[in-house]
Amino acid sequence: MTDNSTSESIRNQVLELGRNARKASRTLMGWSANQKNHALNAMADALDQQTPQIQKSNSEDVAEARENGLTDAMVDRLVLNDDRMTAMVQGLRDIAELPDPVGRILKSWEKENGLLLKKIAVPIGVIGMIYESRPNVTADAAALCLKASNAIILRGGSEALRSNQAIAGALRDGGRKAGLPEHAIQLVSVRDRDAVKALITMDKYVDVIIPRGGEGLIRAVAENATVPVLKHYEGICHVYVDGEADPVKAWSIVENAKCQRPGVCNAAETLLVDSALNPEWLQKMADVLEARGVELRGDERARKIVGSMKTATEKDWHTEYLDMILSVKVVDGIEQAVEHINTYGSGHSDAIVTDDPQKQDYFGRMVDSAAVYINTSTRFTDGAEFGMGAEIGISTDRLHARGPVALEELTTYKYVVTGSGQIKV
Amino acid sequence: MTDNSTSESIRNQVLELGRNARKASRTLMGWSANQKNHALNAMADALDQQTPQIQKSNSEDVAEARENGLTDAMVDRLVLNDDRMTAMVQGLRDIAELPDPVGRILKSWEKENGLLLKKIAVPIGVIGMIYESRPNVTADAAALCLKASNAIILRGGSEALRSNQAIAGALRDGGRKAGLPEHAIQLVSVRDRDAVKALITMDKYVDVIIPRGGEGLIRAVAENATVPVLKHYEGICHVYVDGEADPVKAWSIVENAKCQRPGVCNAAETLLVDSALNPEWLQKMADVLEARGVELRGDERARKIVGSMKTATEKDWHTEYLDMILSVKVVDGIEQAVEHINTYGSGHSDAIVTDDPQKQDYFGRMVDSAAVYINTSTRFTDGAEFGMGAEIGISTDRLHARGPVALEELTTYKYVVTGSGQIKV
Repeated sequence: MTDNSTSESIRNQVLELGRNARKASRTLMGWSANQKNHALNAMADALDQQTPQIQKSNSEDVAEARENGLTDAMVDRLVLNDDRMTAMVQGLRDIAELPDPVGRILKSWEKENGLLLKKIAVPIGVIGMIYESRPNVTADAAALCLKASNAIILRGGSEALRSNQAIAGALRDGGRKAGLPEHAIQLVSVRDRDAVKALITMDKYVDVIIPRGGEGLIRAVAENATVPVLKHYEGICHVYVDGEADPVKAWSIVENAKCQRPGVCNAAETLLVDSALNPEWLQKMADVLEARGVELRGDERARKIVGSMKTATEKDWHTEYLDMILSVKVVDGIEQAVEHINTYGSGHSDAIVTDDPQKQDYFGRMVDSAAVYINTSTRFTDGAEFGMGAEIGISTDRLHARGPVALEELTTYKYVVTGSGQIKV
Repeated sequence: MTDNSTSESIRNQVLELGRNARKASRTLMGWSANQKNHALNAMADALDQQTPQIQKSNSEDVAEARENGLTDAMVDRLVLNDDRMTAMVQGLRDIAELPDPVGRILKSWEKENGLLLKKIAVPIGVIGMIYESRPNVTADAAALCLKASNAIILRGGSEALRSNQAIAGALRDGGRKAGLPEHAIQLVSVRDRDAVKALITMDKYVDVIIPRGGEGLIRAVAENATVPVLKHYEGICHVYVDGEADPVKAWSIVENAKCQRPGVCNAAETLLVDSALNPEWLQKMADVLEARGVELRGDERARKIVGSMKTATEKDWHTEYLDMILSVKVVDGIEQAVEHINTYGSGHSDAIVTDDPQKQDYFGRMVDSAAVYINTSTRFTDGAEFGMGAEIGISTDRLHARGPVALEELTTYKYVVTGSGQIKV
C-alpha cells in the first residue's frame, strides 16, 4: 500500500527502465549472432565467478523465507545449491550454441512489378518478464531474450530479490565486458506492487509481458495489462483411450502421462475411456495406477467397472491436480471425448490412443489444444523435447505463440521490400 | 448511459452471442475448403438478391445520419450505392477463390525417438470485429473470417446499424442454404456501449478483437480489452532520401508516397533529406510537390534551401496529416534518419532511397517498422499489393501479425505429434 506520491515515484522509476530498455533494444537490432554469443559466454563466466556472492545473497533470501513461514516446497524452489548454479551457467552456454533466431528469411517472393518482398524474423523489442520464486529464471529468461536480440525487464518475486539482484548483477558484469548495452538486462528492484502495474501498462516501451508462476499471478497480470501478454494458465490434459486402441500401448501411455512427473503442466489429469473398449482394460489400468499410488475419481460408468474409485464431481473435470490423482470418465466414442476435452480442457496437451487412422485425423483436427498427441504421451510438450532448445514457457494463448515459447517465438517479423523506383499507380 | 440491471442484461445478451460463436467455431474446425467456398458463394448470391432491401435499410441510415448532422465525408462512407454493392458481392466471390489458409503444414520434423511433429495452421476461433461507418466491412470481415474457419461477432457503428443488420441477415440466409452453423456470423445489435465492453472482456469466448476506425475507438478498445487486440493506430510514414540516391527515382518516389492518395495510412507524412545531397534536389522536389498543391513544413535547414516552406514544429514530426501536407527535415546521414524514424514514426511503413547496398542493409535492419522500403514507395503496404489477397486491416503491433492482416494472419497453429507408443523417460 502506498500513497499517491510514492506510487507516482515508483511509476517514474519503472518508466525510466522502459525508456532505457527501448534504447538498448534498438542497439541490439544491429547485433550479429557472434556478438550475442560472445556476450552470453561472458555472462556465463561472470555467473560462474560470482557464484559465492550469489549463493550468499541467496542464503539471506532463504533465511528470510523460512522466518516468514514459506512452505518447504517454496523454500526449495528458492535455493541455489551448487548443482543449480552449475546448471544455470551451463544453460547460458547452451543458449549461445543454438542457431540465431533473428534474420531468418521466413518467406521471399517477387511481384510482377519487380518488387522483391522478404518476410524476415526480427526481435520483438522489449520483453517484460514477471515470475515467482525460482531465481534461475533470471538468468534463463535474460539469456533467451538476448539471444533473440531483445532487451528484458525482469521482475522476480520479492522473496528472491537478493538472489535475483546478485544474478542480474553478474549478467550485467559479464555483458559489459562483451560490449552489451547497459540496459539490455534490467531488474525491477522495487518490492511494491505498483511497480508491476507500471510495467504491464507501459505500452510505449514494453512489447510483451510474459508472466510465469501461479494462476493468481497470471490472471492478475492478464487482467490489468495493456501490454500484450503471452501466458499459460494451467494444463488440464486428457488421454482418450479409444475402442480401437492397442491396449498395451494405452496402459503405458496413460501411466506415463499421469505418473512420470505429476506436478507439471503437461501431466494428464483426466482419462477418457471409450465404452466400446473391453472393461477389462480399465480394470487392469486401475490396478497399474493404484499400484503407483494414484487416487482414481470416476464417473458412474467408470465406477461400475472399478469399484475402488472415488466419485468424481463436476469440479474434478475442471481441476488441474498436479498430484497423483486422476479423474476417469467413460464416453461413447470419439465425438463425446472431443466434446469433453474442448469443454473442460485448458487447450494445453491432449492425447488419443487409437489405431484407426480416421479417428486419429478427427482428433488431430477437432481437439482445440496447443499440442495434440496420437499414440504417445502428453508429457512431450516442452521446447527441448520438440527440438526447439530451451523454452521461456508454454503458451495456451492462441495468438503469436501456441505451445512451447522458445527462441523463434521470441521474435516477430517485418517485411523488407526492395525495388528499383517502383511507384503505386 | 444505463442503469446496472440494463447493463447486466446487455452483458448477458453478448455472452450468449459468445457462447454460440464458440460452438459454431468448433463446428467450423471440421469444415473443408469446399464447404467454406460453397458457403461464401451462397452468401454472395444472397447479398446480390437482397440488394434492394439492403439499399432500403441503408437509405434509412443515411437519412438519419443527415438529420443528426454527420459530415458529408461520414455520410459518404455510409452510402451503399450500386457500385459498392457490386464490389461487396464480388469481394465474397474473390475470397472464395483464394487458397485455404487452414491446414497448411508450416513445419514438419521427426525426432530421434521416432515422434513425428507437425506444426499446422488452424483457425484462431472466434473473432470480434469492431468498426465504424463503412457497412461493407460487415461482409468483407465476415467472409475473410469464415474463409479461415473462424466464427465472427460483428459490432459496427450505430449510424450503420440498419445497413449492417440487412447485410448480416443476407449473409446468414446464404450461409444457411450452404449448411453454415447459424452462429458463425453474428451481429451485436444493441446500440449501447456496454455491449462493446462486454465483447472485449469475454476472454472465454472471444480469441481476438480487431478494431477498425478512428484512433479514439482503437485506443478505447485497446485500453479496456482483456481479449488480445490486433490493431494499428496510425501511419506516420517517412521517406529518407540519402546522399547516394538516384535523384530522379527519389523525386518520383516522394511524390508518389505523398500525393497518390494522401488520406491513407501508408502515405508519407515526413521527408528526411541527407545533408550530403545536392541542395538543388530539394529545391526541385519542393517545386514538384508545391505544383501538386502540397503544403511543406520544414525545419530550419530545409527552410534555408526552400524559403517558401512553413516552419515545422515538434508537433509536426508526430502528426499523421492524412492530407496534402509534408514535413521536411534535413539530417546528417542515415543514422540520424533512422533515429528520427524510430523516435517519431508509428512503425508502419518507411522508405529509403539510396544506391549504396550497405545503407540499404542498415536501413532494412535498423528501422523498426512493419514494412521497410528500399527504392520504392511506402504506398505498397497492402494485402493485395503484397500478393496476400484481401486484408482485414494493417497491424502495427509486434505480436502475431505485423503489416497486412490477411487470411494467413487470421489463423494460428497447433502441434500434432504422432507416435507409436512413445513415453517420456
